[in-house]
Amino acid sequence: MRATLIYGAGDVRVEEVPDPKIQRPTDAVVRVVRSCICGSDLWPYGSRPPTEQGDRIGHEFLGVVEDVGAEVSGLKTGDLVVAPFVYSDNTCDFCREGLQTSCRHGGFWATDGVDGGQGEAVRVPHAQGTLVKLPVGEDSALLPSLLTLSDVFCTGHHCAVTAGVTPRTTVTVVGDGAVGLSAVLSAKRLGAERIILMGRHKVRTDLGRDFGATDIVAERGEEGVARVRELTGGDGTHTVLECVGTLPAFEMALGVVRAGGTISRVGAPQYDQAPLGFDVFMNNITVTGGVAPARAYIEELLPDVLEGKIEPGRVFDRTVSVDEVPDGYRAMAAREALKVLVQP
Amino acid sequence: MRATLIYGAGDVRVEEVPDPKIQRPTDAVVRVVRSCICGSDLWPYGSRPPTEQGDRIGHEFLGVVEDVGAEVSGLKTGDLVVAPFVYSDNTCDFCREGLQTSCRHGGFWATDGVDGGQGEAVRVPHAQGTLVKLPVGEDSALLPSLLTLSDVFCTGHHCAVTAGVTPRTTVTVVGDGAVGLSAVLSAKRLGAERIILMGRHKVRTDLGRDFGATDIVAERGEEGVARVRELTGGDGTHTVLECVGTLPAFEMALGVVRAGGTISRVGAPQYDQAPLGFDVFMNNITVTGGVAPARAYIEELLPDVLEGKIEPGRVFDRTVSVDEVPDGYRAMAAREALKVLVQP
Repeated sequence: MRATLIYGAGDVRVEEVPDPKIQRPTDAVVRVVRSCICGSDLWPYGSRPPTEQGDRIGHEFLGVVEDVGAEVSGLKTGDLVVAPFVYSDNTCDFCREGLQTSCRHGGFWATDGVDGGQGEAVRVPHAQGTLVKLPVGEDSALLPSLLTLSDVFCTGHHCAVTAGVTPRTTVTVVGDGAVGLSAVLSAKRLGAERIILMGRHKVRTDLGRDFGATDIVAERGEEGVARVRELTGGDGTHTVLECVGTLPAFEMALGVVRAGGTISRVGAPQYDQAPLGFDVFMNNITVTGGVAPARAYIEELLPDVLEGKIEPGRVFDRTVSVDEVPDGYRAMAAREALKVLVQP
Repeated sequence: MRATLIYGAGDVRVEEVPDPKIQRPTDAVVRVVRSCICGSDLWPYGSRPPTEQGDRIGHEFLGVVEDVGAEVSGLKTGDLVVAPFVYSDNTCDFCREGLQTSCRHGGFWATDGVDGGQGEAVRVPHAQGTLVKLPVGEDSALLPSLLTLSDVFCTGHHCAVTAGVTPRTTVTVVGDGAVGLSAVLSAKRLGAERIILMGRHKVRTDLGRDFGATDIVAERGEEGVARVRELTGGDGTHTVLECVGTLPAFEMALGVVRAGGTISRVGAPQYDQAPLGFDVFMNNITVTGGVAPARAYIEELLPDVLEGKIEPGRVFDRTVSVDEVPDGYRAMAAREALKVLVQP
């Protein structure tokens, strides 16, 4: 079968790899119907040192079950399923607490001999705990939105939930990428009435308005902070959803958060140290968030997608075949595409 | 009257100052019955550059109302009252949210022409919002515990509350100072069953055991982290109450917090930057806390003190007169005393 491998910065290739097979009785094999490229894939695409052997890549997919191991129940050949971007047994104490990203038996796609999602098929460890059945056919028009439950929409939702967004909280979203826009949609879904989106790409911020943003702030850095302060009577917002992951984005979040407020980070931080000193302390700022346990949220979000109440799949603005995945990376890195859907 | 002034590191003096008077109709004048020295007073005592003119110091006191301004209601001459360590109007939006430390008209004692608490009397701005009446006489044996509602016990309580301590959470308390011990007592009061106290001063950790600590870890740094991990099956604790304020203490907190857990900081951070990178993110660690809005908690905690259910005043292990305050500072800095009560 065909699958995507990364060999280094800017070097993504699609190659023939062995077809996946059941290795453990808890595995399933899933034929991929849709996958996609994540903003976080752009970090290795931007900076990974070159290697002789490539590594599989991709962690978002939905597809059809082709085979299940002897210990997998509740799933059968032919089921359409979505996979969260971390696999997990969904039974350990962390999973029961809704933190499947810390599952005692879980792990990440495309590491430690586990397949990546950007290919034609995937062996799924702990399939029973990991996969969630989708009550639609593989020709459903809802597939793009359903695919966002794998990562990007659940990540935006995690950001809004951990930040404590409610109808009473004002919100700033830092970043107009697919995660930032998902965070806007999530905040709106949780009832927020004032959502300030910080971003400067008009096509994206226009989608942000459709998703629920009430104000757009194109300025960045100190100017961006000043503008948000101006929009909020000098106070900043109760919650800040930091959806970028760079230090300037976090510093901007600190600049726009209201005293007593919360910053949630869901962009993987590209820094080790960050400001956490006297001002943060005196203003009782909370910093929360982290890698999103998508598995914890899928059942809750699924009905809204199925009923068409929300259309998180609108973040996809380009579709490629598996063989075109390298061009999809190029387009996302060049900001020609917001988020690229892969249709094998 | 006599009051304490700080002139620089190690240089605290007791001098004659003008008696306080009502300056605004919202003021009250309080004759101090008990005040005390705070661990945070030791930061300027340790490092403040020398100055020609001294500044008032001290922010914890209870006393008797001697005079009230024309706009103060609910308080009258002769009332025994406790003052939180930040004054506030208790009516603005921040105050109504329970964040009196960010009151729009509030401020800190001993700054901007406001009196400090370590003296014989204090002019109290926004007296009606700031002061809380105590239903005991000034000869009550409960005064030391009631005084802790001014700061130290409310600070420990804020730490436990913002960390999310419940009967289901395991707790590590970093630091065996008066705040750390107050955090132990607070965690116990909120129902925590497993409370690990990190501290190495036996007299203090013994009091910590009395307050509810179930385990004492005397080791620090990596050894301390390893010991807490060992005590918790490798996982760390759900909540970590960081009651010191130094970077090594925060790093230790990061080392002992369980995935998905929360670190609350109530020791004023003596650092600007702190680790907040990939590991913190991948483990979904929340960092919260900050300067405690003591005013928000006094009414809630007062009954337990009055009924003798808790005795937070046990953190005081030395009593001095106002004239002996400089020696109180010396004793606390030398760790001869845990916390010094001042009885004018």
